[in-house]
Amino acid sequence: MGRVTRRGQITKFRTDGTVTKREDVLAGEEPLEIRVGGRSFTVTMRTPGDDFDLVAGFLVSEGIIWEPGQLVSLRYCAGVDDSGQQTFNVVDVQLRPGTALPDTTMERHVYTSSSCGICGTASIEAVRKSSHFSVGDDDVRVPLRILAGLPEQLRQKQKVFDRTGGVHAAGLFTVQGELLCLREDVGRHNAVDKVVGWALRAGMLPLRGTVLQVSGRASFELVQKAQLAGIPVLAAVSAPSSLSVELAQDAGMTVVGFSRGSSLNCYSYPERILA
Amino acid sequence: MGRVTRRGQITKFRTDGTVTKREDVLAGEEPLEIRVGGRSFTVTMRTPGDDFDLVAGFLVSEGIIWEPGQLVSLRYCAGVDDSGQQTFNVVDVQLRPGTALPDTTMERHVYTSSSCGICGTASIEAVRKSSHFSVGDDDVRVPLRILAGLPEQLRQKQKVFDRTGGVHAAGLFTVQGELLCLREDVGRHNAVDKVVGWALRAGMLPLRGTVLQVSGRASFELVQKAQLAGIPVLAAVSAPSSLSVELAQDAGMTVVGFSRGSSLNCYSYPERILA
Repeated sequence: MGRVTRRGQITKFRTDGTVTKREDVLAGEEPLEIRVGGRSFTVTMRTPGDDFDLVAGFLVSEGIIWEPGQLVSLRYCAGVDDSGQQTFNVVDVQLRPGTALPDTTMERHVYTSSSCGICGTASIEAVRKSSHFSVGDDDVRVPLRILAGLPEQLRQKQKVFDRTGGVHAAGLFTVQGELLCLREDVGRHNAVDKVVGWALRAGMLPLRGTVLQVSGRASFELVQKAQLAGIPVLAAVSAPSSLSVELAQDAGMTVVGFSRGSSLNCYSYPERILA
Repeated sequence: MGRVTRRGQITKFRTDGTVTKREDVLAGEEPLEIRVGGRSFTVTMRTPGDDFDLVAGFLVSEGIIWEPGQLVSLRYCAGVDDSGQQTFNVVDVQLRPGTALPDTTMERHVYTSSSCGICGTASIEAVRKSSHFSVGDDDVRVPLRILAGLPEQLRQKQKVFDRTGGVHAAGLFTVQGELLCLREDVGRHNAVDKVVGWALRAGMLPLRGTVLQVSGRASFELVQKAQLAGIPVLAAVSAPSSLSVELAQDAGMTVVGFSRGSSLNCYSYPERILA
């Protein structure tokens, strides 16, 4: 099985002149190949663990699936390393017949034929994926005190971070502050995909009435992933970008940044927050 | 011209019950389409600014170019938004005839034909790009006191971060601590590509004897980018991953993490650091 963490030897230098060798724990990072129906679809670098959730969430984020019945099966392909051990770095997905896959040639060259598709104010249209769910009509309300406490809750429950200091986390919460699912990964996007995939497989999509708390920035891609999972409130410890806010405003999503315990900034739809 | 920052209205909630509306500055994020010889090659989300450096650095990081003569021209394609303004979101590159482009179909499906190419201990081989330069033979030495001071130097000079709190930075330094180039971007990878592209265009590759300081983690991709630019020392404020260290050890690169002023951890080739 892929390793969530790895031990290694480090040299610690202090400016007082002390130099010490000691053992350290690193966050695991290995490539995961995702195959759909036996054909290679993409490769992502990820922290091993919850791979089926990651794959399911990735497919939701790509707009390919939105209900558990579309996932017929998930399995690790056989594959061994030099010592004959199964590596668990290739997952094959069977989708329900008729599930449309994006043309991956187009995926990479999506703008080839549209001469200036990403120019201008329509730029956001060119990079966003259409969502099966809407979040704009979710009239959930989250008490400020609970929302402001989520980063600390997330941090306290980050097991891999505790050992490595080197992974991102995403946590799905109810508006009462109850943690539904927490996932960690060296990649911010993967942590969110793992949460979304967990929810899809549990038959919970769309995630109406929930809050997604992330450890880093609220990037455009994370806003989009939240939208495709039907999550109405995305809260980040750090800042959103201009495009994140543009998408959130358009999608009807509440985006919160700089959530630092005693205060937070809301960039869109502040009416969902009860002060 | 694409905007490096954008102003927007936010609602600030404090847990003491204060709710205030105020103006805020967000880091700009817009898609950039990179065309090679008129054909769409990729689209990346980036903070506008230093786009030609970003494109040049991206091509270095992909292993496509390594000397300035391979870049025949860089220009913005015409493209206007709804109000008739040029958007500067498409850059077309002309490469020297004979410059080999990766097969982008293969790029996306690189593992299709190799049945289990990313399995096992050879996994790193499957995701790494071959580098035109070597860093293992760079016998540069960097004084600890200078190395430990780089994060603070970087932070002090981050103009966009000062206004937004929402961008990453990469700074290229000499071992005397002199800043050669600093670039900021919402994407960590873009900040490094912008630095590397600047150096390529200035005829400075390989960047022997330099230190690259980054604001976030030392991910596998950043180690690889540093290697392809010939940078022997990569220092990060946060942690590296297991694969970063594996690649650095293999490439002969010094990787430093948790560089926090009074101490830092070295994961590979500590002999380049003079305590």
